[in-house]
Amino acid sequence: MISKYKPAAATGNRPAPLNKGSRPPLKRRNYNSPGGRTATGAPRPAFRPAFTAANNQGSLRVMALGGLEEVGRNMTVIEYNKEIIIIDMGLQFPEEDMLGIDYIIPNISYLEDKKDWIKGVIITHGHYDHIGGIPHIMGRIGNPPMFMGKMTAGLVRKRNVEFHHSPHLNIKEIDETSRVQLGKNFNIEFLRVNHSIPDCFAIIVNTPLGKVVHTGDFKIDFTPVNDKPADLNRIAQIGAQGVMLLMADSTDATHPGYQISESAIGDEMSKLFEKITGRIIIGTFASQLSRVQKIFDHAAKYGRRVLLQGRSMNDNVEVAHQIGYLKFNPRLLIDEKDVNRIPDNQLVIIGTGAQGEKGGAFLNKVVNGEHRLIHFKPGDTVIFSSSVIPGNERSIQTLMDKIVRQGVKVINYRMMDVHAGGHAKQEDLKLMMRLLKPEFFMPIEANHYMLRAHAELAESVGVSRDKIFVADNGQVLDFRKVGNQVVGKLTKEKVPTDYVMVDGLGVGDVSNVVLKDRQMMAADGMIVVIATIDTKTNDIIGNPDLISRGFVYMKENKDLIEKTRTIAKKIVKDQASNLPIDEDFIKNKIRADVSQFLFSQTKRRPMVLPVVIKV
Amino acid sequence: MISKYKPAAATGNRPAPLNKGSRPPLKRRNYNSPGGRTATGAPRPAFRPAFTAANNQGSLRVMALGGLEEVGRNMTVIEYNKEIIIIDMGLQFPEEDMLGIDYIIPNISYLEDKKDWIKGVIITHGHYDHIGGIPHIMGRIGNPPMFMGKMTAGLVRKRNVEFHHSPHLNIKEIDETSRVQLGKNFNIEFLRVNHSIPDCFAIIVNTPLGKVVHTGDFKIDFTPVNDKPADLNRIAQIGAQGVMLLMADSTDATHPGYQISESAIGDEMSKLFEKITGRIIIGTFASQLSRVQKIFDHAAKYGRRVLLQGRSMNDNVEVAHQIGYLKFNPRLLIDEKDVNRIPDNQLVIIGTGAQGEKGGAFLNKVVNGEHRLIHFKPGDTVIFSSSVIPGNERSIQTLMDKIVRQGVKVINYRMMDVHAGGHAKQEDLKLMMRLLKPEFFMPIEANHYMLRAHAELAESVGVSRDKIFVADNGQVLDFRKVGNQVVGKLTKEKVPTDYVMVDGLGVGDVSNVVLKDRQMMAADGMIVVIATIDTKTNDIIGNPDLISRGFVYMKENKDLIEKTRTIAKKIVKDQASNLPIDEDFIKNKIRADVSQFLFSQTKRRPMVLPVVIKV
Repeated sequence: MISKYKPAAATGNRPAPLNKGSRPPLKRRNYNSPGGRTATGAPRPAFRPAFTAANNQGSLRVMALGGLEEVGRNMTVIEYNKEIIIIDMGLQFPEEDMLGIDYIIPNISYLEDKKDWIKGVIITHGHYDHIGGIPHIMGRIGNPPMFMGKMTAGLVRKRNVEFHHSPHLNIKEIDETSRVQLGKNFNIEFLRVNHSIPDCFAIIVNTPLGKVVHTGDFKIDFTPVNDKPADLNRIAQIGAQGVMLLMADSTDATHPGYQISESAIGDEMSKLFEKITGRIIIGTFASQLSRVQKIFDHAAKYGRRVLLQGRSMNDNVEVAHQIGYLKFNPRLLIDEKDVNRIPDNQLVIIGTGAQGEKGGAFLNKVVNGEHRLIHFKPGDTVIFSSSVIPGNERSIQTLMDKIVRQGVKVINYRMMDVHAGGHAKQEDLKLMMRLLKPEFFMPIEANHYMLRAHAELAESVGVSRDKIFVADNGQVLDFRKVGNQVVGKLTKEKVPTDYVMVDGLGVGDVSNVVLKDRQMMAADGMIVVIATIDTKTNDIIGNPDLISRGFVYMKENKDLIEKTRTIAKKIVKDQASNLPIDEDFIKNKIRADVSQFLFSQTKRRPMVLPVVIKV
Repeated sequence: MISKYKPAAATGNRPAPLNKGSRPPLKRRNYNSPGGRTATGAPRPAFRPAFTAANNQGSLRVMALGGLEEVGRNMTVIEYNKEIIIIDMGLQFPEEDMLGIDYIIPNISYLEDKKDWIKGVIITHGHYDHIGGIPHIMGRIGNPPMFMGKMTAGLVRKRNVEFHHSPHLNIKEIDETSRVQLGKNFNIEFLRVNHSIPDCFAIIVNTPLGKVVHTGDFKIDFTPVNDKPADLNRIAQIGAQGVMLLMADSTDATHPGYQISESAIGDEMSKLFEKITGRIIIGTFASQLSRVQKIFDHAAKYGRRVLLQGRSMNDNVEVAHQIGYLKFNPRLLIDEKDVNRIPDNQLVIIGTGAQGEKGGAFLNKVVNGEHRLIHFKPGDTVIFSSSVIPGNERSIQTLMDKIVRQGVKVINYRMMDVHAGGHAKQEDLKLMMRLLKPEFFMPIEANHYMLRAHAELAESVGVSRDKIFVADNGQVLDFRKVGNQVVGKLTKEKVPTDYVMVDGLGVGDVSNVVLKDRQMMAADGMIVVIATIDTKTNDIIGNPDLISRGFVYMKENKDLIEKTRTIAKKIVKDQASNLPIDEDFIKNKIRADVSQFLFSQTKRRPMVLPVVIKV
């Protein structure tokens, strides 16, 4: 019966073969996965009907617009009979070669003509990779109602006011007892899980075809700090009711063992509070509120006052304290201006910047002497209490060097166990699957190779191999009832997921052309060659002007510049008398000859920009 | 007596205070270290004699021109009575913000007027961070004789032929039995240590003031693979003879425990060879020859032929095999063109690119379908068998994703123990210090905070705190005899160590100005505004030309471009009639007004380059 599923011919971007070599067709993949995009080899069906919505009657369609090829821009779409719900709307931080880009948001082309279908948006928790796209996207999809925990709601509201173009959001706060009916086809429940921020929910979507469980980011913590433990009993109950599809967090799917409990971390932190006699300065993620709670608890116990530093740290703590997720006596908090009146052994500072961030991050400001009131001094101890985001290692090393130079002791999570991650490791992931016993499984929220690792885990705990879907961003899963059975399939349909880059005020206006130019100028700089032609005499006026930036220091390379000028001048002189003057030809020749000359002299390839002015 | 040491007033760059805040002077540091550069507070002596060589009569001066503030560009200078020896001459890979730079070499300003003093250059081993500066530097310091192990010599010679400007090197091969007299004051011995490349030597410099031991990179491996074990007995003997100063590798000084033996790694690799039935593709560093040897051994044992891929891999294996450091039957090696004739279960490919390198690295070429003959296919297993260089994590993830997509299994060193590091960890470092019992200690070859950690270890095994010197690049240590005692001091003298950047054929010609321009264009692109003024009418001709690259896509932002043009035109029109025409004023005003306008519209700051042409 599977053969009747029609791959969509008219929609989406069919993945292009990665390379055009003459390789033999690849063998079948282990899992249903887009690995086959590298070559198909299969004969095309003679007849391929156009995609119509009618084809999807009775079909539950699931796709992730982001989060399957990266850690970030998480956004899942679930569709049934012209009704859609969305889970999460995150941002992704740019890759190394995306120069100057602030962040990337999910591509919502697929949704823009389906505003009426969208019945609601559900947010699993308040991290940027799950909420960061909201202010850019909600206005473009008809501002449907949103559902999220209290803490998440506080953070989303706080962020939204910074974006003047974002509409007022219609947010409904939910908890583990809530049930929400969205449209005719979706009934939503919320299941409490743990992570590194309070109020994290896995989402249970009751659909006409069965339960879809989306874990969001999660770990299982039997002794969380100021958060309720993941509700294992309820997870088991839901498993007993039967789960059709599980979509689960794969961030740590390559890590063996169990994740550490937040309360175990607290105990190590306690030893530090006991031992350290100077100021304690703790760098952590602003969103890592359970860590922040523990620090407040220790501060109270060991007689230290607390100073919060960094805007996001202040925002998060304020929101969490208002709604009761962070519990501390407000008199513990001190104002920045009083920081130097508190004795060293009675102070703890919690700040941002432990990833080596530049600019306004707290640790960076202090170490560079740019903080108005706080300066490091011998006797201080700085604790780096957050895991290292890949790519930040070198910046962190540089930051540690600078701090240590100021006579300060640095403790990092590698030296002592001051960090517990926020994601389920292999044994936790297996536990979740054992309890939920899903029929179908789709790993989400990680790089492709991690999804694969998660797929292997699923198979090891008994999920049938042909019911495991390792999908790409935008790839559509299709579930239909055939008799009493649900048949699921990873289709060839792929909706657009090209990067939408945010740079300053621009959303999606930085194209690949612009990025390529940035990369070229970043590597070898550029040189502008300006030649002025007198259209009366058909001759060049004077010498071409040269401006170079990021290439060589012109004053110290007069000879090179002079020779370049000569080459350009000769081209213009030779060509200006060929009437009519072919400006494009002159420009192309200057570009080619000057590029080649400069490469031969310097082995660099600056961007050459020829300008011809006719007067 | 220490007070008679004269800090050099006329030499070097006195370290500038990092910040100009009004902080109180810092307290005394734990160790003699440049932490004090942040503030000194000490009153200046009324009289400070100029630096003269005569002041240094009888003084042993030790300085590192690189390797104390980074991992890389290692180069140590030891000087006594106008005689100098140099240990290592390495390169450093660029920091993230050094756009387009190939690498950095040590600054040798201090040496350039002392060519006659230099008696020899000793190289500890053949890694780029110890040999990479050779072709750029040797010609500029009079091409003194060089001393190094056989393997190192092979690699240095091989690299030198690529640099046409580098002189023919006068290399003398040494081994652990060699003794070399350099000048009147230096007698050199060589002590075998282990690392991740064969032929690594610690250098023992017998000076008029006592023994100076420089470990180079090292670990202690009781069961190395195809290398001799570090000579512990001899280390103990040398310790018994008395070591004045130990300079030791700090790369892993923050890592507790012992480094793993290479032979333990081999055993894990063996399990993989036993289990894997398809092709085995191993990504490792070209210089990691002990790993390569093990692979050859397993290949022979399990009936696999070996294909080497990547130029550096071929070079290293060729050199090492020629001189007998790699032992294998040459018939194991196959030629690239035969790769597809060998059955999958009889083939192992050893290649470069396991750090996620782009361009010509083997793994990158294959995964992108750019390799002429080799393509991944299901059944292949790729083993990533080298530790991750900080900063490369994300590139490696991307590479793994691409490989896994092609149906290939990836095994990385985090999942299985397929990697042993090349550097001594804390317990190894302590062992070295216990055996050598140095009077003075100087940690080298790492970032500052790692040097500090090493200093703490030294203290924990009994080196006196005031005899431990945590120095910066270029900072001079001074040792003198006072009676029967050697008195050592970290002076305030600092010789130049500013970055010398290599970019294409240019050495040191990329200035900070050029880098800053690259950074600016990388972040937000640039826009050239060209206005032509008719000097007869003192009016602008037509409209200003605009060229933008890396900023916005001009075709899609016509309105923005048009407004920018109008702003520029108005400025020129207003000013052109003010005679004489003040070109600089016009340019500055265009730069300022256009920058401000574009920032207000886009929150981006492209580089604005105004050009005024008068005809």
